[in-house]
Amino acid sequence: MSPMHPFDEAMALQPQADGSFAGRTHAAWANMIGPYGGITAAQVLHAVLLHPQRLGDPVALTVNFAAAVADGPFTVHARPARTNRSTQHWIVELRQQDQAVITATAVTAVRRETWSGHEAKMPPVARPEDTPVTPRHGVEWLQRYQMRFLDGAIPREWDGSEQDESLTRLWARDDPPRPLDWASLTALADIFFPRVWLRRARLTPIGTVSMTVYYHADADRLAQAGSGHLLVQAQGQGFGGGYFDHTGQLWDEAGTLLATTHQVVYFKE
Amino acid sequence: MSPMHPFDEAMALQPQADGSFAGRTHAAWANMIGPYGGITAAQVLHAVLLHPQRLGDPVALTVNFAAAVADGPFTVHARPARTNRSTQHWIVELRQQDQAVITATAVTAVRRETWSGHEAKMPPVARPEDTPVTPRHGVEWLQRYQMRFLDGAIPREWDGSEQDESLTRLWARDDPPRPLDWASLTALADIFFPRVWLRRARLTPIGTVSMTVYYHADADRLAQAGSGHLLVQAQGQGFGGGYFDHTGQLWDEAGTLLATTHQVVYFKE
Repeated sequence: MSPMHPFDEAMALQPQADGSFAGRTHAAWANMIGPYGGITAAQVLHAVLLHPQRLGDPVALTVNFAAAVADGPFTVHARPARTNRSTQHWIVELRQQDQAVITATAVTAVRRETWSGHEAKMPPVARPEDTPVTPRHGVEWLQRYQMRFLDGAIPREWDGSEQDESLTRLWARDDPPRPLDWASLTALADIFFPRVWLRRARLTPIGTVSMTVYYHADADRLAQAGSGHLLVQAQGQGFGGGYFDHTGQLWDEAGTLLATTHQVVYFKE
Repeated sequence: MSPMHPFDEAMALQPQADGSFAGRTHAAWANMIGPYGGITAAQVLHAVLLHPQRLGDPVALTVNFAAAVADGPFTVHARPARTNRSTQHWIVELRQQDQAVITATAVTAVRRETWSGHEAKMPPVARPEDTPVTPRHGVEWLQRYQMRFLDGAIPREWDGSEQDESLTRLWARDDPPRPLDWASLTALADIFFPRVWLRRARLTPIGTVSMTVYYHADADRLAQAGSGHLLVQAQGQGFGGGYFDHTGQLWDEAGTLLATTHQVVYFKE
């Protein structure tokens, strides 16, 4: 009997009598304080995917980090606010001690074949097998991903040297490898260390406030990505007044755009 | 007595006994079917801004278009799901006939002076006074904006000729001019005609499904933008399976990044 993958352990949600799901934070996904935001976003989406009334596959997810998620149990309340013929709109709250710590909305839809033509192309980069694995130091959740940085690695020296751009590119995959699904793709969309750290080489406290993922892959395409690497990329846009945002893209090894993502992040100074 | 600006007329929301706000769609903002999505997004934000418990200024807004907004009355239910010391998380529903037609989340915050350094720079373009006004044809809401296209204008011929990129840039402002505020900035963030029309020169039916705005300007900066033009830019990312997304930026005439935006849009074929 093989042990359960730590990602699947984190996704264990128990349906409750009131229609909500009970879950727990997982030590394998610990961040500096509380869990990695990406695993929380994945749990939120997973509750929607598990819901007996769910229609279709994810198109959009916005997760707002309303308060620090405390280590321990939580409940996820996912409610279909509107169900149409082929689309469905969800309002989700993740609660602890009867207080909302996450608010979220999701859109699911039955997707159909249409014209397609992804415009955000995978940049020309070295293949994963030709890119050295980047050593991981620090918080526990970093051990859940194999990362191979191509551009914009975390600063080696926190010497306050400023730079104009914060583009980061890396190959990333679950460690140990695991076939990609909607939830794990969502978790990967939060893998970027804070852009303000790259701009400033200074470890200012930060916290993601809101994160959105748009899904461009259907289930077949996810299956094709399998347990391969994803090329993930993010770059900052606006920085000031205590908040910055970034925009990002995730491609599979074959160069197909699987998802786009953006987030706005609090920073202290 | 000067007549009220059509934008302010659309923002008229009446507080109800249950804490919700009553509003109406406005003929001046009519789209092909129902109102312009940007004016609906602005009404959603405006309900948060009017709410007696509101803390701080907008940082993030996500508006999900769950169903077509019908011409006529609606109610907006804005609820602070979590209030922290300096941030607040909102869940909003806009309802018609007791059904949700819009779901939304917003984050407001008391912003503080910090390091700043916007990375998304205004591209070098001709000044608005040197850019001809683009004639407006079609749906009514187009008359509410003066537009001066620089790149990526709506196709002249719907001849099905495909192109690889869908970058659009234009100078835009309220017509008649009106000092910028959070709500009107939000409305402007939806001004882009569908990227799939530009890629394909084909009028396939579309509908925005979810739209997010991140606000990078504080109140002082909005005041400085005044009733000047904004340079607004958007470019598509992924297109397929009935949905595409775009990412966009809005700068004031002085070149300061005021907001970033993204949306995912249904298209029929």
